[in-house]
Amino acid sequence: MTMKLEKNAAGRLVPTEVNRREAVPFQGLGEHRPQGRKAAPTIVSCLDFPADGNKRAANLRQALERVGLSDGMVVSSHHHLRNGDAVANMVFDTAAEMGVKDLMWFPSASFPVHANQLRHLDSGVIHHIEGSMNGPLGAYCSEGKMRGMGVLRSHGGRWQAIQDGEVHIDVAVIAAPAADPFGNANGLAGPAACGLLGFALADSIYAEKVVVVTDNLEPFPCLPWQIQGNNVDVVVEVDSIGDPSKIVSGTTQLTQSPDRRRIAELAARFCASAGIMRPGFSFQAGAGGTTLAFAIYLAELMRAAGVTARFARGGSTQHMVEMLEGGLVEYILDGQTFDLDGVRSMRDDARHQDTSPFTSYNFHGKGNFASMVDVAVLGATEVDLQFNGNVVTHSDGRLLHGIGGWQNCLAARCAMLLVPSFRDRIPVIVDEVTTLCGPGELIDVVVTERGIAVNPRRQDLLDAVTDSDLPIRPIEDLKSELDRLCGAPARPELSDEPVAVVKWVDGTVLDTVWRVG
Amino acid sequence: MTMKLEKNAAGRLVPTEVNRREAVPFQGLGEHRPQGRKAAPTIVSCLDFPADGNKRAANLRQALERVGLSDGMVVSSHHHLRNGDAVANMVFDTAAEMGVKDLMWFPSASFPVHANQLRHLDSGVIHHIEGSMNGPLGAYCSEGKMRGMGVLRSHGGRWQAIQDGEVHIDVAVIAAPAADPFGNANGLAGPAACGLLGFALADSIYAEKVVVVTDNLEPFPCLPWQIQGNNVDVVVEVDSIGDPSKIVSGTTQLTQSPDRRRIAELAARFCASAGIMRPGFSFQAGAGGTTLAFAIYLAELMRAAGVTARFARGGSTQHMVEMLEGGLVEYILDGQTFDLDGVRSMRDDARHQDTSPFTSYNFHGKGNFASMVDVAVLGATEVDLQFNGNVVTHSDGRLLHGIGGWQNCLAARCAMLLVPSFRDRIPVIVDEVTTLCGPGELIDVVVTERGIAVNPRRQDLLDAVTDSDLPIRPIEDLKSELDRLCGAPARPELSDEPVAVVKWVDGTVLDTVWRVG
Repeated sequence: MTMKLEKNAAGRLVPTEVNRREAVPFQGLGEHRPQGRKAAPTIVSCLDFPADGNKRAANLRQALERVGLSDGMVVSSHHHLRNGDAVANMVFDTAAEMGVKDLMWFPSASFPVHANQLRHLDSGVIHHIEGSMNGPLGAYCSEGKMRGMGVLRSHGGRWQAIQDGEVHIDVAVIAAPAADPFGNANGLAGPAACGLLGFALADSIYAEKVVVVTDNLEPFPCLPWQIQGNNVDVVVEVDSIGDPSKIVSGTTQLTQSPDRRRIAELAARFCASAGIMRPGFSFQAGAGGTTLAFAIYLAELMRAAGVTARFARGGSTQHMVEMLEGGLVEYILDGQTFDLDGVRSMRDDARHQDTSPFTSYNFHGKGNFASMVDVAVLGATEVDLQFNGNVVTHSDGRLLHGIGGWQNCLAARCAMLLVPSFRDRIPVIVDEVTTLCGPGELIDVVVTERGIAVNPRRQDLLDAVTDSDLPIRPIEDLKSELDRLCGAPARPELSDEPVAVVKWVDGTVLDTVWRVG
Repeated sequence: MTMKLEKNAAGRLVPTEVNRREAVPFQGLGEHRPQGRKAAPTIVSCLDFPADGNKRAANLRQALERVGLSDGMVVSSHHHLRNGDAVANMVFDTAAEMGVKDLMWFPSASFPVHANQLRHLDSGVIHHIEGSMNGPLGAYCSEGKMRGMGVLRSHGGRWQAIQDGEVHIDVAVIAAPAADPFGNANGLAGPAACGLLGFALADSIYAEKVVVVTDNLEPFPCLPWQIQGNNVDVVVEVDSIGDPSKIVSGTTQLTQSPDRRRIAELAARFCASAGIMRPGFSFQAGAGGTTLAFAIYLAELMRAAGVTARFARGGSTQHMVEMLEGGLVEYILDGQTFDLDGVRSMRDDARHQDTSPFTSYNFHGKGNFASMVDVAVLGATEVDLQFNGNVVTHSDGRLLHGIGGWQNCLAARCAMLLVPSFRDRIPVIVDEVTTLCGPGELIDVVVTERGIAVNPRRQDLLDAVTDSDLPIRPIEDLKSELDRLCGAPARPELSDEPVAVVKWVDGTVLDTVWRVG
């Protein structure tokens, strides 16, 4: 296949057509304005739904038949159950039994458990995947084995793509820890409780057909209705939607690494010294080991200074819940709950509000929460001298990580990357990132255990910390030290064959992932 | 103006074009299936909204200028503040100051306080009103003084019309008892607390521009966000959005009339005798004097029989809240709160869930709640021998009442009309209703103080109460008695000039309101 490539405003070579749709190359920050009107699902009628509200099908196959699953359709699923999810695998196993081919799988993210879909990619049940791919699926795509191109979108970008009609979902399948026969559903109860179902909200609104799969059917009304039954076509009961032990664990361990603890501490102290940690401020910190440690150091500094936050953005964990209950934060605006304390708090405490990519991240909305956050701390696989960030490929060019809400969070007033200097003896600071996921204009601070680099565009931050004892260093200086210690790494051997693209939050194509090997 | 009229499936003469849009005559129950796709608002971008989330304008005029209010636009407002609303009047007063003409006002309902708009109709600021009109506005329309035609839609029909693109709202103005500068809003707090803002939900989603007007601005985040700031363009603070004494009062007085108490008691006893009042059942009862009395009698019977309801549909009042708190009902699914006990309960009790016309009534959805309710008790101005009901005109043909959720509630498994035999010595049971609002096929029982008429289509109900001591009588028999007592009333003198139409829940035209006098 010959593919037309064009250099975008970030200097990256990107295809102008992706999976037979025209794709707009990245135009530069703030340069692309959308055209047209939002996607509009078909108008339906209550005449075609049971008056008693009972939408149950006997099993998943019957449900998929009822919604007319057929060749070439777009099927979505969601990652609320993380590596414990059983539903996406069931869906494609059932599609295979039904003899359906060439589906596009549109997950909000995929996990190692979804390696099950490799055989469906091989056999032709799945044509390609648009969504974050990590582990074996990422490797499959990186090696050029997928028939279509991977499209990596942020959580906000996924909402934007659905809302703008760039991706038309034929069948959304929503795994629901609690649901009623009408289709009202939430993630707050049952054996597979995961907190919220925000990643499925766009699908429930815009997909032509919506199937709710649950292992915990309640009588109507299932409250709260994070997913509204009025958007649901069919409800199916199964024995189990997932493995609880893998749903709410795995990312919530506090790091034991002294380097990472130092990174977290430096980042927290930076927030205090720079005046970001002021009364009524807000922060976003996820559940990775380093960011969790950051939140713990930050809480200590807040307590010492007598400062409380107006709100914190989750992923929530026990620690964030303790900050809420202890009065250090007034509200949690939560995108996902990473442990059962988070689930309980969201269920029982009105100050712990579930959010969705619409409220938090959608760039084609009337504002969103991401830009209202004072500081967001994030990870990265690479960062370069222009402060550009990479989060989806390793320095070997392989697609190995999901993009999540990372791009969206860069809109914060201060976006900080918390990164170790090395991974497997490979420096994290490079001349130029392998894959551009976030433009350097948006990345304000890079914190490593060897020092803190502040983006020269943020003279205000540099001024604010000038009298502190923080190890503020030019990024070039940090990079030189790392290169001296390890030697600058060889660049990966990449083909000129695109296997995936990375979209920016406005739907334009920011970069290309090239076939490896 | 010559108008093409056509006889619809209910035998009513209706215009085939309404306010320059083609209108589909009523096709019969279950006969009309919608075509096409839902309305789709213009795609917007965060680039055009402040990154800090502060969308405040200095005053209402500035807000209306910012959203580009101009001649011929459709402007919506909502009746959450009932007869205490100050905002709709402010909007049209401001539009008049701005010199804007020919607006279409699209309220979710209007109240006597909105007689203020008569001068804007006279002066040309408002071209016409599509929405329930009662009191002076109803009289204005009935007398043929409005330039366009009135269009009366049920609460569910209003959602359907917006969703289906039949009414495109240019500017929605939402009066909000609590809001933040981003536009998140609810009705639960502040001096004008009214409970919920469900009638504005469709507007917030589908209107091109959305203005939130509040007298109680809170720092972000205002929770819960019954209206999501991500759908809001501008926020304005004013001194007062309404008169609290008129917001949550007026419809919650228990009737003192012995006749009406008897009607309520008969209706409650009918529910018990017919087996409707069984464990886990559901009911809908509003806040009018008779229906409130019904709920009180029903509660007594439930207590005596040891029966609890799975859910009750409000409008909620203190009495319904007591049923919830006393364990007689498990959940309240509430469309509006009629008193401050309702507001408090909705704010503090997770079992008291706010709903919207989407969840409850929209007929062009994947089911709705109305058809899942075991019994709904409603009023009417007239009912005829075919069990057809009228709720918008009096027997003199004048448009004097709002249509509310009345049509939607007829979808209940048992729809009961609770009506006094006479009003002002005019019998309520007539040969043929002046204006057809609800087809007799859907009206199951008519309860008067002189007896209960069961629709012969509901042999199951007749069988169920056959051994009871309830005064079950053929409707013809009831009517004869009333006519004997009063004499059959003269039919109103109506012109052949349509002044308004009544839409059915599926968007078709059910009947015409003719100019009087």
